Amino acid sequence: MNSYDYIREGDAIYEKSFAIIREEADLTAFSSEQAEIAVRMIHACGLVEATEHFRFSSDFVSQARGALHVGKPIFCDAEMVSHGITRARLPADNKVICTLRDGRTMGLAKTIGNTRSAAALDLWDEMEGSVVAIGNAPTALFRLLEMLDAGAPRPAAIIGMPVGFVGAAESKEALMVSRHAIPYAVVRGRMGGSAMTAACVNALARAGL
Amino acid sequence: MNSYDYIREGDAIYEKSFAIIREEADLTAFSSEQAEIAVRMIHACGLVEATEHFRFSSDFVSQARGALHVGKPIFCDAEMVSHGITRARLPADNKVICTLRDGRTMGLAKTIGNTRSAAALDLWDEMEGSVVAIGNAPTALFRLLEMLDAGAPRPAAIIGMPVGFVGAAESKEALMVSRHAIPYAVVRGRMGGSAMTAACVNALARAGL
Repeated sequence: MNSYDYIREGDAIYEKSFAIIREEADLTAFSSEQAEIAVRMIHACGLVEATEHFRFSSDFVSQARGALHVGKPIFCDAEMVSHGITRARLPADNKVICTLRDGRTMGLAKTIGNTRSAAALDLWDEMEGSVVAIGNAPTALFRLLEMLDAGAPRPAAIIGMPVGFVGAAESKEALMVSRHAIPYAVVRGRMGGSAMTAACVNALARAGL
Repeated sequence: MNSYDYIREGDAIYEKSFAIIREEADLTAFSSEQAEIAVRMIHACGLVEATEHFRFSSDFVSQARGALHVGKPIFCDAEMVSHGITRARLPADNKVICTLRDGRTMGLAKTIGNTRSAAALDLWDEMEGSVVAIGNAPTALFRLLEMLDAGAPRPAAIIGMPVGFVGAAESKEALMVSRHAIPYAVVRGRMGGSAMTAACVNALARAGL
């Protein structure tokens, strides 16, 4: 039944993929730890050119890894982000929380006059010191910044990678210049998405490739 | 708390997004039904240029929609694909099946000498007339072609959009030239992924934007 010639061994596929990415991608702007994350994010989108849009604050990797190691939760804006995170790789059996489908979210959205994705954040309980992973909705990232302005607990790090054509670029620029100065990883512009966001979390969770 | 200026209404965001995509993307290669799907796939990746890699067989939309309307299941290679499909939009309460985490998959992978993603296909039961959505693993798409060579039941349509640097491009080319001539939607080359794949299914499930 093996009529096609392809690599059938998972680890070998990863190894070769990462080698190709390191050969082709311009990673010179990154520290070695940031580069590990960038490689996995490229792997998730298939585009080595995407690195030009990647921005990491200098304290992002250390703060995000520190939060994961002491068992802080990961808050996600979308089910796809949550389901892309490899639970077995998390260092402290960290909770991965997505409240988008919580029964209260729809009502909250009407109350606050925003999307369900934004309203879902009102149900994030232990945000202090957590890792936030936003890979879908610009409104969720804007809402997070508004909540911080209003005095909400500070996450340890924010992965801001919503994708799209309306508000995505703007929400990520707002995160980078926010006065709260929370460590961030961002894909500037329209690109981003749940796969790159989950890849970022997975790379944080396991140092080294 | 509304210190940022952004659109907070979900339908308005979609509408504006799709208008921007239709303004910027080259959709001339597609039928109007294919273009609807292409618009949603662009929306999922944030790149209007991606259309140059999209290929739909002429019978793809009709065959895939037909399968969904008579209640055939959707088989996914990855949890992220499955969780990106909007269940409420499916026309016949269709089953969405992903067997990657089935307890038998790991053992099957060892038996057949392939990845877990490929082995998971051996647990797909009602494949005749179904819609297959492969958004992550090239090995799953290669395995599907091998199973068809060996006489497996024919899906009605195959969404072949694995992403990556090893085997992704090759597996999709193999699908397009396969002697089985099953209707397909493909993103050629390295791009693809669970979000574009789920967007394709979601666009099939609801005609019109």
